[in-house]
Amino acid sequence: MDLLKQRIVKDGKVFPGNILKVSGFLNHLIDSSLMKEIGKEVCRLFEGEKITKIMTIEASGIAIACAVASELNVPVLFAKKHKSSNITNTVYSAQVKSYTHGNVNTVVVEKECLAVDDRVLIVDDFLAHGESLRGLIELVKQAGGEVVGAAIAIEKGYQGGGDALRAEGYKVESLATIESMGDDGIIFRN
Amino acid sequence: MDLLKQRIVKDGKVFPGNILKVSGFLNHLIDSSLMKEIGKEVCRLFEGEKITKIMTIEASGIAIACAVASELNVPVLFAKKHKSSNITNTVYSAQVKSYTHGNVNTVVVEKECLAVDDRVLIVDDFLAHGESLRGLIELVKQAGGEVVGAAIAIEKGYQGGGDALRAEGYKVESLATIESMGDDGIIFRN
Repeated sequence: MDLLKQRIVKDGKVFPGNILKVSGFLNHLIDSSLMKEIGKEVCRLFEGEKITKIMTIEASGIAIACAVASELNVPVLFAKKHKSSNITNTVYSAQVKSYTHGNVNTVVVEKECLAVDDRVLIVDDFLAHGESLRGLIELVKQAGGEVVGAAIAIEKGYQGGGDALRAEGYKVESLATIESMGDDGIIFRN
Repeated sequence: MDLLKQRIVKDGKVFPGNILKVSGFLNHLIDSSLMKEIGKEVCRLFEGEKITKIMTIEASGIAIACAVASELNVPVLFAKKHKSSNITNTVYSAQVKSYTHGNVNTVVVEKECLAVDDRVLIVDDFLAHGESLRGLIELVKQAGGEVVGAAIAIEKGYQGGGDALRAEGYKVESLATIESMGDDGIIFRN
């Protein structure tokens, strides 16, 4: 998606430690017009898939998920990071390893919010190693629902999480896939 | 807003300890159609206010904030709950007491995301004691911006936070204000 790539080049900031900061337009301060365009593009990429629900993980995926859901006119469900180790039997839960923070989060959704006949599109702002995506896929599977695929704003292609999921048969569509970033600037795939 | 009140009566669940659970349509699983209507209604309530930015706090306010921002075509900024006590000089920060969880959170926004000429509308899913709202107002003030007012989906009127802010001159508009809830059901103000 050229609009997003151009915006990343213009307003994204690369920091040591493989960090791409897009907090000026994507996941802290959020550009509403860009969100609408992202919603339309994801809608186009998954046309005909009979999606019943958009799923994401708090907090930075919610804005993009809402934009897609608004376009498709389906509900959004966001998984919550669970604070305590006391998981009740009213929720589905999965473990998500964070490479950024070096810890493991338990993520949960209430069982009554996912159904066996749900066709779920997972949406997130970033895809790197794919751990968040795998956690969300696990939650949908626990409910007996179907994962239609995943729509990601920015994929860090060189970290391999997206390609591993594609090799397993998942439809993973990223609007901007980064091959490399550093002193030479940001190089996109394609 | 009758549509929201009807939905609260239909799908909201009241639990002991003054808990109103609306996770089936407002702040976990999110009804996209309802969000659009909320966005339109908030837009109507603050017409002519020349709002430049919507502000909320992660995570449950983000969906509603995005709906309002989409309608007004302005950016959303969400304050983050800060994990460590190490606050850098690149952020504005404020303390927010949580009556629900019995703790104090530090909330932050990056300084470059708020400007002195911003006219900010604060949006959130719930208003009870008003602590979150006061934290967000404090962040806007630190930046030298102006708080146009606050738009809330559900106000717990009997907890007094909204009326205290109104007495201080803030325009606080709640789409559904609850006077009481318990065995007799939910009673709305008006």
